[in-house]
Amino acid sequence: MDDLGRVHRPGVLDVVGDRVAWVGSPSDAPREGVRDERRVGGLLMPGLVNTHGHAAMTLLRGAGDGLPLRRWLTEAIWPREARLVPEDVWWGTQLGCAELLRSGVTTTCELYLHSRAVADAALDAGIRCVLTPGIFDLPGGGPTATWRHFLDDAGQLHAQYEGRDGRMTVGLGPHAAYTLPPEGLATVARAALDLDALVHIHVAETCEEDRAVRAMHGCGAPEALARAGVLDGRVLAAHCVWLDADGLDLFSRHDVAVAHCPQSNAKLGSGVADVGAMVARGIRVGLGTDGPASNDNLDLWEEMRLAPLLARAVACDASVMGTLDALALATRGGAAALGLACGALVPGLAADFVRVELDDAAFVPGGGDAEILAHLLWAASSRLVTDVWVGGRRVVRAGECTTVDLQRARREVAARARRLAD
Amino acid sequence: MDDLGRVHRPGVLDVVGDRVAWVGSPSDAPREGVRDERRVGGLLMPGLVNTHGHAAMTLLRGAGDGLPLRRWLTEAIWPREARLVPEDVWWGTQLGCAELLRSGVTTTCELYLHSRAVADAALDAGIRCVLTPGIFDLPGGGPTATWRHFLDDAGQLHAQYEGRDGRMTVGLGPHAAYTLPPEGLATVARAALDLDALVHIHVAETCEEDRAVRAMHGCGAPEALARAGVLDGRVLAAHCVWLDADGLDLFSRHDVAVAHCPQSNAKLGSGVADVGAMVARGIRVGLGTDGPASNDNLDLWEEMRLAPLLARAVACDASVMGTLDALALATRGGAAALGLACGALVPGLAADFVRVELDDAAFVPGGGDAEILAHLLWAASSRLVTDVWVGGRRVVRAGECTTVDLQRARREVAARARRLAD
Repeated sequence: MDDLGRVHRPGVLDVVGDRVAWVGSPSDAPREGVRDERRVGGLLMPGLVNTHGHAAMTLLRGAGDGLPLRRWLTEAIWPREARLVPEDVWWGTQLGCAELLRSGVTTTCELYLHSRAVADAALDAGIRCVLTPGIFDLPGGGPTATWRHFLDDAGQLHAQYEGRDGRMTVGLGPHAAYTLPPEGLATVARAALDLDALVHIHVAETCEEDRAVRAMHGCGAPEALARAGVLDGRVLAAHCVWLDADGLDLFSRHDVAVAHCPQSNAKLGSGVADVGAMVARGIRVGLGTDGPASNDNLDLWEEMRLAPLLARAVACDASVMGTLDALALATRGGAAALGLACGALVPGLAADFVRVELDDAAFVPGGGDAEILAHLLWAASSRLVTDVWVGGRRVVRAGECTTVDLQRARREVAARARRLAD
Repeated sequence: MDDLGRVHRPGVLDVVGDRVAWVGSPSDAPREGVRDERRVGGLLMPGLVNTHGHAAMTLLRGAGDGLPLRRWLTEAIWPREARLVPEDVWWGTQLGCAELLRSGVTTTCELYLHSRAVADAALDAGIRCVLTPGIFDLPGGGPTATWRHFLDDAGQLHAQYEGRDGRMTVGLGPHAAYTLPPEGLATVARAALDLDALVHIHVAETCEEDRAVRAMHGCGAPEALARAGVLDGRVLAAHCVWLDADGLDLFSRHDVAVAHCPQSNAKLGSGVADVGAMVARGIRVGLGTDGPASNDNLDLWEEMRLAPLLARAVACDASVMGTLDALALATRGGAAALGLACGALVPGLAADFVRVELDDAAFVPGGGDAEILAHLLWAASSRLVTDVWVGGRRVVRAGECTTVDLQRARREVAARARRLAD
């Protein structure tokens, strides 16, 4: 499956270096293609792109389950995060990246604390990563816990990691319009323009947040971001559940991309983002897992199916968001939202791809391309992902992530989570 | 995990014949328990209960993907169903039962055509089955396609299959209030009372259906069923998306159970049933996969997670439908809706249980019972189901359904689906 749901049966995928060189029918193939794969069968499809993740939060999975949102944050999440050390985040990210890769995610956009540890763990795991170091004021934290400190640090991370291994892009992650003062937002905006860096920010995740932003800025988040100059650069807005038409129009005019996180938004009772209204305005939309504390796994396949399910349930219309639309959100839609040259198997783009086992009841009865792709989205799941390549390098083989010591990562995360909970 | 989220770590499950005899800690165990399982580790939990299925529709999986609901039915589904022969339904049900069992479903309530084939295929597959033969007028069908014919046939099926192998219960499946005339509903109601049989019926699945029922009966489906005497017996109403408060009150007064099918309702754009309002009225609610033409798999694990996701998204409240509530819907809630003595691992109930592999990243970091159960619902999936027992008999071993010739079933379903599509 190269792009737009086009399936070559049989097909050849030819990789040169870390890029796709050719895709098509074996009879037309100029070269031998991905040699060992030609004999295996199965479906090769573009790797999935996660546009909003906090992979390290494997450390916090299940914490405070069942608490209402505010108590969940203040009683379960924030106290644990205050105790995090970089090594915790390294192990949490390693485990998270292994889960992402095994479920077919080849790119993840990460916003979290201790970003050096996130970067190192993601590079070691072999995943493609857009690192957007978190920038905000930590409550009661002193000079190393201010937005200025985090912004300085992000600048250093950009100098250090941008372009590393051909897989790392560094942006800026100002947390949200309600956790940074207007001066902070404006300073981040200028820095992002200077670096030509993506700004990744939480926007209108909950109704309560929308009210807090309006109380603080006298307007909604899109207007506040526009005033601070943030929208003059490249922006990825996560969630966007509580945007009105004016906010969507503003985002559309400034070509702001959206990371849609349907499962996290549903589980935390935040609501359902109106993806249809975004797409109708030409807004670039990708999917996000959010963190495993609110999902509770990193399986973007679930988001790829939940996005159309929620959209159809809310619209009461089965013709909303078809199979190809959902597949596109998870692949080239995500790549477009992040501004990366991946998300489709066409020559010149990154050789990020996934093998899906077709020898399963999920692909019965099968038929033409339309049936195969319907089965892929609606009946299959990440359990059928067997092998994953990032930049032409195989990082999952027969269901096992070969780049992460999974047993050790699980032990470390379990032990560190116990310490964080104490 | 026996019931109500109680986990014995370590635990022993003791089976005598086809029933649970004892559950608890090894130190207190009166007998040896499930011997080979004691050494294996993993979590034993009650088998999932599917309260609304059409397993044979594996034959129609993916057909007409993307069409709006009405065209999907008239152009893709009904023309194929008109060509079905019993052997098609036998193979379709075999494949469907294999998928149900492999994903941890031990009981399924089936409503379809050619019910003898459904019954035989379900018995052969080793699943527990509530068979509710479809009763309705087939369009343009002659004397063997009338509700009277199907009702007579259902009576014969009841005589023939009720109690078979200790796993089969036979009820009646009048399709819906809009596909049977009032006289038909009343006659079915009397027959059900005579047989003390469950009546399984589609109710208020779509807004359009609600309007059709009101046009035909001058009232909504609950009132129409009450007038016809259907509610005087035991009733399971599937879907119930478009019920108003009066309808819910009427169902509550008559102790009507509901089969909630969140994924089918979402995918087909039918809407979101208000499970919270049902539970608040004391209505028994179970989960249903519906058929694989509208789901598109038979993985009740997905419904178990989607039910709370949809309920929370619509209510904008993270405290709606907690982890234990969702687990209960899929197990003892479903058993209660069907009136069966299963759905929990407590002495005297059917020995229907599932082994879930805990040695996976989904169960990291773990912790106490609350964390394990949160991981089970929110981070795990049916891919971690390794072994399944129905009535004490192991029917899935190491991920393979041992009762169905899966390769043959897949070939037969694929070939028959091609014929149906021609």
